[in-house]
Amino acid sequence: MKYKQSGVDLWGSSQVKKEIKKLARQSYSSQVIEGVGPFGSLYNLSPVLRDYQNPVLVQSTDGVGTKLILAKEYGDLFSIGIDLVNHCLNDILALGARPLFFQDYLAQDRLRKKEVLEIIEGIVAACQINKISLIGGELAQLPGIYQKGKFDLVGTITGLVEKEKIIDGKKIRPGNLLLGLQSFGLHTNGYSLVRKIIKEKKLKLDDYYPEIAGKLGLILMMGHKNYFPSVFPIVENFEILGICHVTGGGIPGNLVRILPNGCRAEVSLSSFPILPIFKFLKKIGQISNREMIEVFNLGIGMILVCSQKDVSKIKKALEGKREKVFVIGQIKKGKREVILKDSL
Amino acid sequence: MKYKQSGVDLWGSSQVKKEIKKLARQSYSSQVIEGVGPFGSLYNLSPVLRDYQNPVLVQSTDGVGTKLILAKEYGDLFSIGIDLVNHCLNDILALGARPLFFQDYLAQDRLRKKEVLEIIEGIVAACQINKISLIGGELAQLPGIYQKGKFDLVGTITGLVEKEKIIDGKKIRPGNLLLGLQSFGLHTNGYSLVRKIIKEKKLKLDDYYPEIAGKLGLILMMGHKNYFPSVFPIVENFEILGICHVTGGGIPGNLVRILPNGCRAEVSLSSFPILPIFKFLKKIGQISNREMIEVFNLGIGMILVCSQKDVSKIKKALEGKREKVFVIGQIKKGKREVILKDSL
Repeated sequence: MKYKQSGVDLWGSSQVKKEIKKLARQSYSSQVIEGVGPFGSLYNLSPVLRDYQNPVLVQSTDGVGTKLILAKEYGDLFSIGIDLVNHCLNDILALGARPLFFQDYLAQDRLRKKEVLEIIEGIVAACQINKISLIGGELAQLPGIYQKGKFDLVGTITGLVEKEKIIDGKKIRPGNLLLGLQSFGLHTNGYSLVRKIIKEKKLKLDDYYPEIAGKLGLILMMGHKNYFPSVFPIVENFEILGICHVTGGGIPGNLVRILPNGCRAEVSLSSFPILPIFKFLKKIGQISNREMIEVFNLGIGMILVCSQKDVSKIKKALEGKREKVFVIGQIKKGKREVILKDSL
Repeated sequence: MKYKQSGVDLWGSSQVKKEIKKLARQSYSSQVIEGVGPFGSLYNLSPVLRDYQNPVLVQSTDGVGTKLILAKEYGDLFSIGIDLVNHCLNDILALGARPLFFQDYLAQDRLRKKEVLEIIEGIVAACQINKISLIGGELAQLPGIYQKGKFDLVGTITGLVEKEKIIDGKKIRPGNLLLGLQSFGLHTNGYSLVRKIIKEKKLKLDDYYPEIAGKLGLILMMGHKNYFPSVFPIVENFEILGICHVTGGGIPGNLVRILPNGCRAEVSLSSFPILPIFKFLKKIGQISNREMIEVFNLGIGMILVCSQKDVSKIKKALEGKREKVFVIGQIKKGKREVILKDSL
């Protein structure tokens, strides 16, 4: 019996293998060592390490949750690939890190070539923009685990930060201010609740709603904003004391995570515009204030903590990078908690 | 409204968070930087880099496939956690790498604390044995994507290899020999076929079969063997020209991946013992030779390629590490393919 190059490889499925590799290759930096064996991906660290005294690897694994279901229903799998990368990238940016490379995991009940390639194209596009090498991944066909037509998508990002420059929130002090950066929409959180509302209220993704000035599906599928291009230069040039990536758990659930003991954060809900999609969902879904606040970002996708003396120049610098920035609150002396003021 | 530490964190779910962190902490090396912010995991590279001239990061993302379903049916989720780590570890070992750290992704239709903790305990146990730090992970609850009671489990391992010591198969030459290392059983491949056989032939996991000298479930759940403790010292002390981790695709599907152009591998199926479980599955499932060979490892979990002059000392050294080793074939001049001789 003779066997040539088989269906099994790093990408799991021979039909799509070549196309995925061709796509991924577009994202490779010169550090990616190619063609050296298929059991793992290799990234040459030496050239990158020259910029670091005490290099620390930063890694984050994440998924995009049930936004996947909506993405498929709405027929926009390309953007879910972008969402995945941007979500992971923002996570390590919150520690002050620069990304190096990415791996993805994509599993379906039955692999569908067109869908797989659309997702990978989105991942590659987001990687290219941010100079991240998509060095590998895994495709899995798991009948009996996934529901018919459904899939899951997971990403692992790896980056580097100088040890002394890790942004860990430890230097946050009473008096510091909170700068909120506007989000594009739901990003990748709150979609289980959204799907419940859609089902209960019999909403249609293709319907236009004047309150949100667009088709529901389009507004709900707005991408997870990539804050790296605007925020990383700020991190390099100013003293940023803490960064909070607002994901599942909303502003309070995430902001509390970077607070040191003895510091509480006070955020005013009237200090930034609540995006129309959130007002729409609250009204039509009759969602309580508490649930809104704990599930959605409400219009703030990232929060930077800085001292009062730096706030105006940092705000100006971010605005120069086309961010919409609001002073949304401040740090006060107290228990390690987040207090929300004003109403939705 | 007041918010204390919320349910959202690196591990996704507050109920299990503390317990998972406590478990993971048992695996930490001193390189893991703790408590510095929840959006990513940090690993201090500097102390490790001292051993490398040209450090190359090696990474592999993988799952354990539909063995998950069997593991749950059989009630052995602890060992599926071990399987995940061992599978990933063998993958980067095949490139000559030493592991540093691991991240997991675990998603269910509805998170079940007991199941989650059992899996994580298995992951941590395997990490500890191999001095791998479980630096982070993600728990996701995805109703509407996973079938009732089902889940997926993904791991990403990151390791280091000296650039000049990457095992890439490029030095493989005609005349080299193939050393096959015995497997424990199916490892993590072939379970979709196994489940089909179980269903069609109405087999019971709890039934004892004399042909396999054990209960079917127990033999099918045999763990994915960890070759790191025995093979890594060999890699460091002998010239290993290629390493093949036998996973999905069986011996031919994986062995072909490390062959350079101009080299074909000839493997004799009578040179090593076909494990009883494979004979049993073939007979009871009436599976063709071809399918057997393309799906299962048949009893060989890893293949090392070495020169003829080194073979006896390498074999002896591996046997000294309690491996069962067989010379299963050799490299010949020819097209880049795998030829299987003798019958099953």
